[in-house]
Amino acid sequence: MPLGSNAYEEMKLQSVSSHPLGAAAVPAPELLCIFGTGDLGRSLGLRLLQSGYGVVYGSRRPHSCGPLPEGAQVMTHAAAAQSASLVFICVHREHYGFLETLAPHLEGKVLVDLSNNLKKGVYPEANAAYLQRLVPGAAVVKGLNTLSAWALQNGLLAGKQVFLCGNSAEAKQAVGAMATKLGLTVQDRGTLSAARELEDFPLRLFQEWRLPLRVAVGLIAFFFFYLLIRDVIYAAVEQEKDISYRIMIALANKVFPIVSLIMLSLCYLPGVIAAVLQLYRGTKYRRFPDWLDRWMLCRKQMGLVALGLAFLHAIYTFIIPIRYAVRHKLISRVVDEMKDNLTTPFYFDKTEAWGTDSFFVLGILGFFLYVLLGLTSLPSVGATLSWREFSFVQSKLGHLTLFICTAHGYIYGWNKFLRPSTYKWYTPPGYMLCLIVPSVVLVLKFLLLLPCVDKTLTRIRQGWERTQPKEEMVMTKATNM
Amino acid sequence: MPLGSNAYEEMKLQSVSSHPLGAAAVPAPELLCIFGTGDLGRSLGLRLLQSGYGVVYGSRRPHSCGPLPEGAQVMTHAAAAQSASLVFICVHREHYGFLETLAPHLEGKVLVDLSNNLKKGVYPEANAAYLQRLVPGAAVVKGLNTLSAWALQNGLLAGKQVFLCGNSAEAKQAVGAMATKLGLTVQDRGTLSAARELEDFPLRLFQEWRLPLRVAVGLIAFFFFYLLIRDVIYAAVEQEKDISYRIMIALANKVFPIVSLIMLSLCYLPGVIAAVLQLYRGTKYRRFPDWLDRWMLCRKQMGLVALGLAFLHAIYTFIIPIRYAVRHKLISRVVDEMKDNLTTPFYFDKTEAWGTDSFFVLGILGFFLYVLLGLTSLPSVGATLSWREFSFVQSKLGHLTLFICTAHGYIYGWNKFLRPSTYKWYTPPGYMLCLIVPSVVLVLKFLLLLPCVDKTLTRIRQGWERTQPKEEMVMTKATNM
Amino acid sequence: MPLGSNAYEEMKLQSVSSHPLGAAAVPAPELLCIFGTGDLGRSLGLRLLQSGYGVVYGSRRPHSCGPLPEGAQVMTHAAAAQSASLVFICVHREHYGFLETLAPHLEGKVLVDLSNNLKKGVYPEANAAYLQRLVPGAAVVKGLNTLSAWALQNGLLAGKQVFLCGNSAEAKQAVGAMATKLGLTVQDRGTLSAARELEDFPLRLFQEWRLPLRVAVGLIAFFFFYLLIRDVIYAAVEQEKDISYRIMIALANKVFPIVSLIMLSLCYLPGVIAAVLQLYRGTKYRRFPDWLDRWMLCRKQMGLVALGLAFLHAIYTFIIPIRYAVRHKLISRVVDEMKDNLTTPFYFDKTEAWGTDSFFVLGILGFFLYVLLGLTSLPSVGATLSWREFSFVQSKLGHLTLFICTAHGYIYGWNKFLRPSTYKWYTPPGYMLCLIVPSVVLVLKFLLLLPCVDKTLTRIRQGWERTQPKEEMVMTKATNM
Repeated sequence: MPLGSNAYEEMKLQSVSSHPLGAAAVPAPELLCIFGTGDLGRSLGLRLLQSGYGVVYGSRRPHSCGPLPEGAQVMTHAAAAQSASLVFICVHREHYGFLETLAPHLEGKVLVDLSNNLKKGVYPEANAAYLQRLVPGAAVVKGLNTLSAWALQNGLLAGKQVFLCGNSAEAKQAVGAMATKLGLTVQDRGTLSAARELEDFPLRLFQEWRLPLRVAVGLIAFFFFYLLIRDVIYAAVEQEKDISYRIMIALANKVFPIVSLIMLSLCYLPGVIAAVLQLYRGTKYRRFPDWLDRWMLCRKQMGLVALGLAFLHAIYTFIIPIRYAVRHKLISRVVDEMKDNLTTPFYFDKTEAWGTDSFFVLGILGFFLYVLLGLTSLPSVGATLSWREFSFVQSKLGHLTLFICTAHGYIYGWNKFLRPSTYKWYTPPGYMLCLIVPSVVLVLKFLLLLPCVDKTLTRIRQGWERTQPKEEMVMTKATNM
Repeated sequence: MPLGSNAYEEMKLQSVSSHPLGAAAVPAPELLCIFGTGDLGRSLGLRLLQSGYGVVYGSRRPHSCGPLPEGAQVMTHAAAAQSASLVFICVHREHYGFLETLAPHLEGKVLVDLSNNLKKGVYPEANAAYLQRLVPGAAVVKGLNTLSAWALQNGLLAGKQVFLCGNSAEAKQAVGAMATKLGLTVQDRGTLSAARELEDFPLRLFQEWRLPLRVAVGLIAFFFFYLLIRDVIYAAVEQEKDISYRIMIALANKVFPIVSLIMLSLCYLPGVIAAVLQLYRGTKYRRFPDWLDRWMLCRKQMGLVALGLAFLHAIYTFIIPIRYAVRHKLISRVVDEMKDNLTTPFYFDKTEAWGTDSFFVLGILGFFLYVLLGLTSLPSVGATLSWREFSFVQSKLGHLTLFICTAHGYIYGWNKFLRPSTYKWYTPPGYMLCLIVPSVVLVLKFLLLLPCVDKTLTRIRQGWERTQPKEEMVMTKATNM
Repeated sequence: MPLGSNAYEEMKLQSVSSHPLGAAAVPAPELLCIFGTGDLGRSLGLRLLQSGYGVVYGSRRPHSCGPLPEGAQVMTHAAAAQSASLVFICVHREHYGFLETLAPHLEGKVLVDLSNNLKKGVYPEANAAYLQRLVPGAAVVKGLNTLSAWALQNGLLAGKQVFLCGNSAEAKQAVGAMATKLGLTVQDRGTLSAARELEDFPLRLFQEWRLPLRVAVGLIAFFFFYLLIRDVIYAAVEQEKDISYRIMIALANKVFPIVSLIMLSLCYLPGVIAAVLQLYRGTKYRRFPDWLDRWMLCRKQMGLVALGLAFLHAIYTFIIPIRYAVRHKLISRVVDEMKDNLTTPFYFDKTEAWGTDSFFVLGILGFFLYVLLGLTSLPSVGATLSWREFSFVQSKLGHLTLFICTAHGYIYGWNKFLRPSTYKWYTPPGYMLCLIVPSVVLVLKFLLLLPCVDKTLTRIRQGWERTQPKEEMVMTKATNM
């Protein structure tokens, strides 16, 4: 992180050789100024003091501004501004007014705007742009606004990324150096025009999760009512049986795996569509449609929602045998068995044993791979993977998971597909509906892996274009990575 | 990271334009000196060599000091110190004596004290302070002592946070620049007076986990004996039945969920108490009592211990049906059923089916949310959340989890609260006791969410004070964040 | 991060005091040049623009090179190179040829080689070394090649570690400063001779996982066939029963825990061997044999594979009661019970109840500790642990886990060890075989913890050597950490 010019001067004066650096020679710490003695101001001051800075608070009432960190001074705003070249503005935007009158004292200073708004789009301009307009002679740097008073106070900053923007490269360097000293990782986002974006960061609420969650809720609602009609209402109407107690667990345990499988396949569908589009267009140099781009950007969240549903499915399955209804059914079956047949040994259906066990094993393996995929999507685990490892896990392992989970679905219905009783009220059961998308994805993926198709696709992804004269292509596109 | 002055000189001499930087022009690497050829010294040297530094070891017996990393030189301490401006002291404090005699050779050098002690509080002063006293002419920097030889050797340093302290800003800059080059994140902790704190870091042993673990152990012990008396001893005394085999699983599976629920509510109780305190005091500018501060700081660990117990409860529940005693009971029930009633169909209690299924579903959903909360408390996941997302998860989702888990507890006893047989020896069952704290927390939280209370609390948290003249308040406090 | 010399000049010219830094005084951003307009080139350009740099693309056909990020300029290679001091080479190695003719224009520039190969060992020299040979007058820096176009485009760079190497320290400083500005953590790997290693990084595919996975596959195959013969084939041959349906779940659920336990003990065996070796040799200053070193380096992966198998074992166990075969067996048992004994109450074996419950409890606790160990091996969790905490978890908690899981295995066979029917075809059952290694590890570990042995070992690890005269030892070795 480059130095501010005064820091450089300081260094020139005290070179290692000219005077020995003993315990006695503690240099006066660099002074920083904080406007505002609220939670954020106080936590920031504490943290700066811990990192070896001197801190001066600017306050309207320097003598009655509540408890401040030990070692900090309090002055009037003007005096405080005078004593430091960096001023942190820890004041709500609504109260920026007083800064205009202070403008002469802030001439040439670096002002760090840490403010956030409570809602998006309340003001026409960003807080930092407003501040710059009020104090045109200062260099405003927007940033550090993603830090909470809580994190500052408890030293939870290690490696945390913060964003800076501002029109003065030098001012950003000074702020960046300070932030690096606090243990933060700084990312420069350019000029002050990015301030609005930075101010919206702390207000984001699971933006990239919204589409996946909406898809999940929509699918869950659809399949819930579909199965409610087919199972509970059908039984009530046609057989005059009340099996509504099944809603809580038996029905939910059908909905969750169905939606989970569909959402898993929706993770891999956009990749397949993109490949088909590239093959059809014969080039990779045309942008994908917007909906495809947006879809591809939320694949990770889509997959994690699917994993959550698979996790619920697993737990719902584990508690099946301790349910009252299941135990009741088991006991009834024994009683029936006894009454019918007290002499011959109870018949053991080996096909049934193989079928159900295969069904369970595929489910277990699928869930295991699902969890593996989820683990590698943890930021700290993903960061340790090489590019090839990441693509191996997300592509090969991902498609294998989809294949196994789809097979798990097929085996569930292996002996039911051709039975007329399966199609109550002429509707297909839920597990059949949920197999459509995964099957399409798997078939398309299989076709894309055929040598001839794969070869063309690889060439297209390396820059080859079908419509271009071949010679020229080699010269221009294929040279680029 | 700012430059040391000699680094600056070096740069001025070899500017980009003055001589081309070809493969031939490899500049001599900067030399660093290490005193001590033990594990740490060797690993550090290896790592420095990998990062492009030259390394000189100082040793008492330069010709017989065991295997050293390839490329490093070995000299006497005095000669080694002469050749570098930065000296790493990888020697135990007990052997610092020889450094006093070397003091003239270390004049003006930066000494990095990496030493740790085996126990806390053995010496009256920090190792680094002692070193500074022995070599007053050098600039001692304490730091990097949290790195292990193992991590250094295996390159596991990426982004790891290290702490520095020292009286010379320049010396800290030089060490910090070196550490940044190794891929470490540096945090400056001020002057050498912080050295003792830094030396205690590697000796910490789950400090913030102690209170939660003690609470957990205490509660587990209490409920274990309470339930032992109520269940096993009661049965032995009053019914003369030996049901001691239930201790291992059935009793443990009552204790774990009870303690888990209580500890989850203890995560949210301090927040509620703090809010009530602020409402009562009418200001947020008075410090909370110490016990409340300490409690609030270990909420995360409290919650994770609760999650661990909930995890145990889940597994204990999953294996219920494969237990010998359970299978035995099931078979006995069938046999009894058969003997009593061989003709009429076995009665199915729909209320029971709904009740138990609701109980299970609430348990599953509660556990699911529990796990979500646990995942967001992983450092790398939490770091990706915005402030609003984090507070949404920890507050809204947290209280929802508590609500669902409490409802899980209430449904467990839904038809037992009014039964006299529930109160063996006039004591309430465990699940009733465990519902007290969560219910209190939820009721208080609900009251705090009432519009009139919530509004006052929000104003207090924005700086408003009840006792202050209103006009003044607006001027001073409300301006601060 | 130190400054390049031109950055320094810039700073001297615009000092804070000499001219105020207002919104109007936006300095022209530093220009960087990118050769290559492929995916990587475009993503990198986008990212650089976001961080406040200016970007100039060099292209053979500046007027038809596809969509580029907004704000970037496109020129011929020569013109683009002229305008910047840093040139990113985002071109495949196969097309480096044109750079030779550009060499005069690249004199004195810093060239960043981001190229990767599709396979290892295709070319005799590293891409970066080849580039340096083509353009000897430039300073080639190899690095950033582990970044994917995807990560660049989506801003997933925070704290990601990148590696740099190059012969010019100044060139590396300039590239490092740029990378730090993008939010990356830079690690310097020395001179250009490390380029080959850096180019191999993105091609690594779970290298450190290979040995553990091979061991796991080998053990699984061995125990699968061993148990297949003992269980299924034995039953077919000797009892003429077809129990092949057991392969899917019952047999797999024996193989997984067996291999898991063996692999867990293989995590701790090398540590024990190392200690015995140090005791035998009486010194820690002799290198361990290569196989032991390699083994010790993959202990973490070994443990995680073991955890994966334990996870499978847990799920296989949870679904036992819903299996067709198990339910069938239960019903058959009731029917048999009824026929034999319709009057006396069904016998309850308390020893059996205690035995099986202890077995389950040990399994649950073992799995719980297993998961804890796995969680602490997550990079972000491990990073928050102090050295003492990490060693506590990995050594004490690890050996406790091994002890509990081994006890789980012993209790499984508690009443079978002396039964002749256990030894079908004179072979011991699988669980006996799997107890050998863990038992050896635990016994050795116990012996190493005996006070007399432990004391000697601690002294050896602090540098003491048995063969050395004692006095000298104190002087040389014991001083080092």
